[in-house]
Amino acid sequence: MGANRQIVLLRRPSGPPAESDFAARVGPRPELSAGEVLVRTLTVSVDPAMRGWLVDGPNYAQPVPVGEPMRSFGLGEVVRSRDPGFRPGELVVGMTGWQEWAVLAGTDIQRRVDPRLAPPSTALGVLGITGLTAYVGMVEIGRPGPGATALVSTAAGAVGATAGQLASIHGARVVGLTGSEQKRRICLDTFGFDAAIDYRAEPDLAAAIARECPAGVDIYFDSVGGRTLDAALENVAVGARIPVCGTISLPPDGKATGPRFERRLLVQRVRMEGFLATDHLHRLDEVAARLAAWLADGRLRHLEEIAPTLDDAPAALVRLLEGRNLGRSLVRVADPA
Amino acid sequence: MGANRQIVLLRRPSGPPAESDFAARVGPRPELSAGEVLVRTLTVSVDPAMRGWLVDGPNYAQPVPVGEPMRSFGLGEVVRSRDPGFRPGELVVGMTGWQEWAVLAGTDIQRRVDPRLAPPSTALGVLGITGLTAYVGMVEIGRPGPGATALVSTAAGAVGATAGQLASIHGARVVGLTGSEQKRRICLDTFGFDAAIDYRAEPDLAAAIARECPAGVDIYFDSVGGRTLDAALENVAVGARIPVCGTISLPPDGKATGPRFERRLLVQRVRMEGFLATDHLHRLDEVAARLAAWLADGRLRHLEEIAPTLDDAPAALVRLLEGRNLGRSLVRVADPA
Repeated sequence: MGANRQIVLLRRPSGPPAESDFAARVGPRPELSAGEVLVRTLTVSVDPAMRGWLVDGPNYAQPVPVGEPMRSFGLGEVVRSRDPGFRPGELVVGMTGWQEWAVLAGTDIQRRVDPRLAPPSTALGVLGITGLTAYVGMVEIGRPGPGATALVSTAAGAVGATAGQLASIHGARVVGLTGSEQKRRICLDTFGFDAAIDYRAEPDLAAAIARECPAGVDIYFDSVGGRTLDAALENVAVGARIPVCGTISLPPDGKATGPRFERRLLVQRVRMEGFLATDHLHRLDEVAARLAAWLADGRLRHLEEIAPTLDDAPAALVRLLEGRNLGRSLVRVADPA
Repeated sequence: MGANRQIVLLRRPSGPPAESDFAARVGPRPELSAGEVLVRTLTVSVDPAMRGWLVDGPNYAQPVPVGEPMRSFGLGEVVRSRDPGFRPGELVVGMTGWQEWAVLAGTDIQRRVDPRLAPPSTALGVLGITGLTAYVGMVEIGRPGPGATALVSTAAGAVGATAGQLASIHGARVVGLTGSEQKRRICLDTFGFDAAIDYRAEPDLAAAIARECPAGVDIYFDSVGGRTLDAALENVAVGARIPVCGTISLPPDGKATGPRFERRLLVQRVRMEGFLATDHLHRLDEVAARLAAWLADGRLRHLEEIAPTLDDAPAALVRLLEGRNLGRSLVRVADPA
């Protein structure tokens, strides 16, 4: 039980985050107070939402303080516990941050992970917030069914790939939007989408969506906003649903302008709904059990890209935000005992 | 049974409709085919949606053809019937258009009106599409309840006033947005709103909304879009609902730009939903019965402004679109037999 290696935020990025905005630091092992749990971090996550956590502005989360470890979800092993609800050896998920050791209030631990059900890293992905985001957005807001067409943004990404497969499982036709021919092939071959569009290869995205969604878009699962949303809106069918789980294509300062779309929502009777999976954490076990069954019977597939050491986390974040990752982006911090 | 006076569309307006875009014409009385009903028009309506019906562009309705009678809802008396479902003397509501006599397919008659329940003109207002719009938007999409704050646009108008009162009836606090001190007083004194804002008197509308909605806006009933929507979005509470029933502040060509608000929908987990009352016509009798009970017990009030002759209809439309009307805008065509 020595020191605690951490990746801290060195300065607040003015544009897209760079590796140099972060630094490794070795801090002391934190002390445990009553009700707290000491966790040895095994795996941490790299998330699109982190871009928003780094900037100081209106958001659903306070910005990460400069000089503090980067906020992240993590999977860890309970080493010591002063919360009677947790015992050493248990695997748990919580906001560990990018560090080797984390002290979590027992009440802040999101859930226990049973390693017999699925590989524990899935608790940070398809059986975690990623899967919950896809489920709430696609199944509950999108309501896919036979005859419907679901269009999915960042379709080869962890959330998008899961959302698209959930639409398929519920009988809808699924069309993916993604940023390379390689990812387009993954959408078709690995995730079984009915069609996929490489938006970088299409001079007119709205026309490409019209081509692949000839009966219109009944569900647009939106994690990007901006011009992709505009192109989707040009193709929405009457009564379409647009769950919004991210706006990664917009500048983080919130100052973007674009075509007004309230009339489009009216004319096509569209429901557009922003949601955060973190509002639904109390349902994570229930949703994860459902997703685990589809994982087990092969109807739901997932990809992971695991960086080998904690020090690789900033590079993994940059890679993710540039759209170069393939599958759920995770960072290995330590191996299970 | 002589000729048929009509107000026809003379030319498609390029900007806001003017009286000179319409003309009176005397046409022959239409012939009846099997399944049709001859209706003597008593009252026709003047609606904000008419602006959209006049322009040629993406809309939820085909544009009114130049040279044809202006499309409108109307209340009329069945004079002759070749549909066994209707008998002479019955009062009915349908798309009569601005004309003295209309032939309607029996299947196009929206409903019968029982003059014993309420004054028949209410079938074109608070107990008609107007009330249905307010009910679907405020009650079903907005879901008002105790502790919630509902902000209502065009609050002294027929739909807005009804929507606001429905929020009150369901226990919410109601704040109206309207365009004059006179209308502000009507919101407070006639319709019993908790607060009302004259947006023409406020240099900073978002700040005025913040002042009157200190706990944020839980429901924004939107019939205007544009900058008023932007100001409301600045004040939405987490989990807000925005039913959209009109976008009258936008240019009808659909080319407006403005601040992008998808991130706002995400951060505050807002549901924004366009709807058209005409999708819910099959429920009009059920909803009207509910509204009639509130009218009868005095919890729901309404204002009507009835122009005296058919030839006054174009001026009434201009007046409505300039926001100078008070209450539901109707035109008397004839008196009941």
